[in-house]
Amino acid sequence: MPVLFWIVPVAGVLAVLFVLWLARNVLKHDSGTPKMKEIGDMIFQGAWAFLKRQYSTIAIFSIVIAIVIGVLVGVLGGSGGEAENSYTGFAIAWRTSVAFLVGAACSAIAGFVGMYIAVKSNVRCAAAAQKSLREAVNVALRGGGVAGFLITALSLIGVTAIFFAFGGYNEPEIAPHLIIGFGFGASFVALFAQLGGGIYTKAADVGADLVGKVESGIPEDDPRNPAVIADLVGDNVGDCAGRGADLFESTAAESIGAMILGIAAYLVTKNIVWILFPLVVRGFGMIASMIGLISVKTKESENPMSALNRGYYVSLILAVVGLFISVYFLFNSELHGKEMWFFAAGLVGIVASVIVVFVTQYYTEFRFRPVRDIAEASKTGPATNIIAGMSVGFETTFATALIIGVSLILSYWFGTQTGVEGAGVFGTAVATMGMLMTCPYILTMDTFGPITDNANGINEMAGAGPEVRRITDKLDAVGNTTKALTKGYALVSAGLAAFLLFQAYLDQVSFIKTGEPGGYPLVDLARIEVFVGALLAAMVVFLFSAMSVKAVGKTASKIIEEVRRQFRADPEILNPKDPSKPHKPDYARAVDITARAGLREMIAPGLLPILAPVIIGLVFRWLGYEAPMVVAGFLMVGTIVGIMMASFMNNGGGAWDNAKKMIEDNQLKDEKGNVLGKKTAAHAAAVVGDTIGDPLKDTAGPSLHVLIKLLATVTLVLAPLFVG
Amino acid sequence: MPVLFWIVPVAGVLAVLFVLWLARNVLKHDSGTPKMKEIGDMIFQGAWAFLKRQYSTIAIFSIVIAIVIGVLVGVLGGSGGEAENSYTGFAIAWRTSVAFLVGAACSAIAGFVGMYIAVKSNVRCAAAAQKSLREAVNVALRGGGVAGFLITALSLIGVTAIFFAFGGYNEPEIAPHLIIGFGFGASFVALFAQLGGGIYTKAADVGADLVGKVESGIPEDDPRNPAVIADLVGDNVGDCAGRGADLFESTAAESIGAMILGIAAYLVTKNIVWILFPLVVRGFGMIASMIGLISVKTKESENPMSALNRGYYVSLILAVVGLFISVYFLFNSELHGKEMWFFAAGLVGIVASVIVVFVTQYYTEFRFRPVRDIAEASKTGPATNIIAGMSVGFETTFATALIIGVSLILSYWFGTQTGVEGAGVFGTAVATMGMLMTCPYILTMDTFGPITDNANGINEMAGAGPEVRRITDKLDAVGNTTKALTKGYALVSAGLAAFLLFQAYLDQVSFIKTGEPGGYPLVDLARIEVFVGALLAAMVVFLFSAMSVKAVGKTASKIIEEVRRQFRADPEILNPKDPSKPHKPDYARAVDITARAGLREMIAPGLLPILAPVIIGLVFRWLGYEAPMVVAGFLMVGTIVGIMMASFMNNGGGAWDNAKKMIEDNQLKDEKGNVLGKKTAAHAAAVVGDTIGDPLKDTAGPSLHVLIKLLATVTLVLAPLFVG
Repeated sequence: MPVLFWIVPVAGVLAVLFVLWLARNVLKHDSGTPKMKEIGDMIFQGAWAFLKRQYSTIAIFSIVIAIVIGVLVGVLGGSGGEAENSYTGFAIAWRTSVAFLVGAACSAIAGFVGMYIAVKSNVRCAAAAQKSLREAVNVALRGGGVAGFLITALSLIGVTAIFFAFGGYNEPEIAPHLIIGFGFGASFVALFAQLGGGIYTKAADVGADLVGKVESGIPEDDPRNPAVIADLVGDNVGDCAGRGADLFESTAAESIGAMILGIAAYLVTKNIVWILFPLVVRGFGMIASMIGLISVKTKESENPMSALNRGYYVSLILAVVGLFISVYFLFNSELHGKEMWFFAAGLVGIVASVIVVFVTQYYTEFRFRPVRDIAEASKTGPATNIIAGMSVGFETTFATALIIGVSLILSYWFGTQTGVEGAGVFGTAVATMGMLMTCPYILTMDTFGPITDNANGINEMAGAGPEVRRITDKLDAVGNTTKALTKGYALVSAGLAAFLLFQAYLDQVSFIKTGEPGGYPLVDLARIEVFVGALLAAMVVFLFSAMSVKAVGKTASKIIEEVRRQFRADPEILNPKDPSKPHKPDYARAVDITARAGLREMIAPGLLPILAPVIIGLVFRWLGYEAPMVVAGFLMVGTIVGIMMASFMNNGGGAWDNAKKMIEDNQLKDEKGNVLGKKTAAHAAAVVGDTIGDPLKDTAGPSLHVLIKLLATVTLVLAPLFVG
Repeated sequence: MPVLFWIVPVAGVLAVLFVLWLARNVLKHDSGTPKMKEIGDMIFQGAWAFLKRQYSTIAIFSIVIAIVIGVLVGVLGGSGGEAENSYTGFAIAWRTSVAFLVGAACSAIAGFVGMYIAVKSNVRCAAAAQKSLREAVNVALRGGGVAGFLITALSLIGVTAIFFAFGGYNEPEIAPHLIIGFGFGASFVALFAQLGGGIYTKAADVGADLVGKVESGIPEDDPRNPAVIADLVGDNVGDCAGRGADLFESTAAESIGAMILGIAAYLVTKNIVWILFPLVVRGFGMIASMIGLISVKTKESENPMSALNRGYYVSLILAVVGLFISVYFLFNSELHGKEMWFFAAGLVGIVASVIVVFVTQYYTEFRFRPVRDIAEASKTGPATNIIAGMSVGFETTFATALIIGVSLILSYWFGTQTGVEGAGVFGTAVATMGMLMTCPYILTMDTFGPITDNANGINEMAGAGPEVRRITDKLDAVGNTTKALTKGYALVSAGLAAFLLFQAYLDQVSFIKTGEPGGYPLVDLARIEVFVGALLAAMVVFLFSAMSVKAVGKTASKIIEEVRRQFRADPEILNPKDPSKPHKPDYARAVDITARAGLREMIAPGLLPILAPVIIGLVFRWLGYEAPMVVAGFLMVGTIVGIMMASFMNNGGGAWDNAKKMIEDNQLKDEKGNVLGKKTAAHAAAVVGDTIGDPLKDTAGPSLHVLIKLLATVTLVLAPLFVG
């Protein structure tokens, strides 16, 4: 075991201690006036109730899936047949099932704890804003840090622990294959967390807006609207829990994939560093992110985004140093200087993560042309606004594809320059790990988003003064930016990881067939069955998008019905006879109805990407085709199309959102130079665009990141079925 | 030469005579009142001016491209190098250039003549409607027949003639490779025709609506709107000329691709039927379609769609008979009964074309759930309408992918059952040819659409009586259906053909390298360069969609400016002081401005799919990768994504359109049972949806069909560049 490996447990333990310190720090903050406390409690209860219900559903599914995997892989996966070896039959089946449950459980724990602190932080952030901007930033950032660091730490500790539990010390060349269930468990939970949360949050948002703002003419976040708490709950369960589960699974699955790819070199060199490298890099990344977070000091007068960015740059620089140390100390004795090509490959990933930030800003901020075009198009009504936004969304795929494509080609080439056989793919794995090094920090910034969004809503509902509102408004805007950046980051990292996960799948197929890596047949797109598999994969991405968008619509209609019912049942909710004693709407019921409907609607789109590759694989196996290759084609083209659609949806949605904000900021003028602001036709048109963008950017788009990785993990785990 | 081959020239000559007869028949009809004549003349002049300008641009581009191909392929394509043979260097370069120009010219001639008659038919159809429905259907159908049969006949005659001109009689194994330029010429013209026409038609439509209906509150097709003639012109240049060029290129490129695939069997058997088969099948298809068209007899009381459908079924049955005869007489002596597997493969194509019709109807008619869902969603405003429509559009990819996937697998399998080596791919070619047999009839029905649409507009502008309006209204609705069906047909045939065109490309690469078929390396998606090529292909489809949608917006803004300018310059256009002497707007100027802007905007998206594969191929060649395989990956995944996006756009757009029509037909009711018709908020919401769907279904979507095939032909032609 190389000495440097100890960075992994050290970083893991440090991260957990850091999380405890952050949590204590946040919780000891004052939670404001009784009114704020009351609102905060309602959000907490709503979010908690949703999570409990959601994770109960997920738990049941998980147990069923664990059993199904065990049986299917055990029985169909070559047990007792010719191909029987450590990678087939019951040898792998029970371990995969156990790893699956552990992965699912870790993801759930991380989600729960992160959420708990986030929902406790929002009201404290709102209260802190009454003191100073700096204080409010601190609370939100530390609250976000609990989620960010706990999630990544549990992923690092979980993968490491199960690796050693399944014999990684004695048989490091076999253990990575046995723990792929962990990645599948993580992506399974992530898909349902993101889908359920995404459907909930956007249904509540759209529903509250349509029935509140449009039908009844009351402002956003007005306490008379029964759906207003559901809307605030939604920000937590969608952005916070959903994205957390997404990146938990990214870090887990991609570490495991990279470890599998390291086996080939291990078998030649008998040097375990090839397998442990991803964990070491992530250990350094954890520490770099921790220091970055601690270094954030907000000046009272500055834009808080600048302070967050400074912390990010600190993390990035330290990550580069950590990467250098890892590469040098792990590989120098073997590669004698050529290991620096791996350092270059890792840099590609780090640079890619920075470029993503700029590109996302270009496409979604109204300083730049794309959003301005959409705002201009709003002058001629909603139709032209939407056509313009769709065009911008489609256009963003250009940058996304170019960043991913160039990063892959470059890091692969750097890998090959080491002269080690098969190191090209390992180069792309190093790039992916490089990109993921700052994940704890990114995730912290992401969770900052829903905390400040909620803080702003709480202040609005509690009737805070204008100075306080100004602070939380500003933080809310920063939160919107960090949420958009995280989505870009999550997407590009998924794209970068895709290639290494394919290769891991192909290695897995090869191991099952021959007990050795690299013996897989080619994935020949010119074969009819591979081509048809690829075509069906593209279709699954579109169908998934259709189902998840439609789920938002269906759930929203349930909320609308409930709000209308409450308004009818008690007209004094809207127009109290005695304004000092307003009738309170039944928030909890609205929350509950949204939760039930949202969870019901998440099931069909959630099962699609799990069942589709399995059915296609088994049907083609039954037809007598080379099923593992069909599934590989399915996986690769599904990934490509998923990345493109997610880029369209995330960035298009963000652009629509900010085109509306640009008009609300009075930045749009008509031909004669008059400002077109709120309550103009142009604003109404932009609101329509924003409403359309919402389910795209917060439900379907982010779920597609998870879908991409789920396709990879489900095919990895079920590879024995297809080989047969 | 097999005796049965004579069906090809016979069918070609018959079709030309048939076209002359149809044209004479249409032209001798009365062209109505002086007012109708005047309007008809304006449309004719506008369409003619646009076409002249459009084809001048295309002609210049074509000549440049012909020279560039000649030079590039001649110099870079292995001339004088090791690989030099009949498929490389100047040997292929000059022939490709000449074939390119001939293909482009044939497409242009077919487009011009078809358009000429279509624009002469509209006013005659309007006049015939004053006599009877039957008479009006006859005029529209015969006018459409001129386009339908001339286009397919020129494609059949053109391919045959150039095949023999380039030595097909003596060296049938080489000639198909030399004529691929013909297919590229055809798809080159088709892309610009479809893009230019599509941009023009939707910009005029959206522009006329926004500035007329929305800003000035005047009804559709009101003579006071300066853009109204441009709108009517647009229907002709978009739907008629564009789709005609699309299917000209389908039939040409797919015949050539199928002929290339036949070479492998020819080399073994020395039996030329393998190469001539596609032409023979199309000859029979031509005759089947002719008899089908002649058989159409409309009863005065029935829905004209039923009459058209009866004619279609006649064509289908005769096509099946023709297919049987072709297969039996060409292959029986060699395959002794096993040739019936090819008959089965051909049936797959014919059945697929029928299923497409039903699926398209399911997704776009308001008898069924999808459109009803969109109409229901309109009740809560434009945002929910658009979300619902987008979801339906995404969902339609399911049926599209399934039809194409199952047809490919089945026809491939039938092909392999003949026991001939490599006959699986030939099976998919037979299926494609089977599907294309009824193309002349389908194209006739398609051109029926813009003729009846125009006839309806002319009657509106000329102030015809309600009974006449009722007839042209009915015909217009039938035309909308036939236009939607043709798009579905064109898309699925493009998808079905895609696989045969890939294989032709791979054969071409193999011939260039080795002088023999089947020697191509595999298209291994697991190689990083192929994967990145595939990723970039998906991106190109999205970017192309972005550019073509944006082009519509930009062009529409020019029209809006011009109409506003005319209204400002002469207020009496809108509100004449003496209503008996209205001031006429300057229609010609509006037409001209739309044409200029539309043609300028078509250039960038038009060049993208031509340049992208060339640049990618050359860059990867320069980087030292196996460029032909990168391009193959690009081609295949670009096709898959193109099919999915086109399915989303065509069907989604159609569904939005008909959701609006459903509301206008008073088929939507609110909770209390009140009808929600025109001038309600639900209708306004549905109008927004329709406006968004328009550029998707009439510009970007149909252009994507062409893009798919253009990718195939441009890579086929430039294959020598990549092999190097």
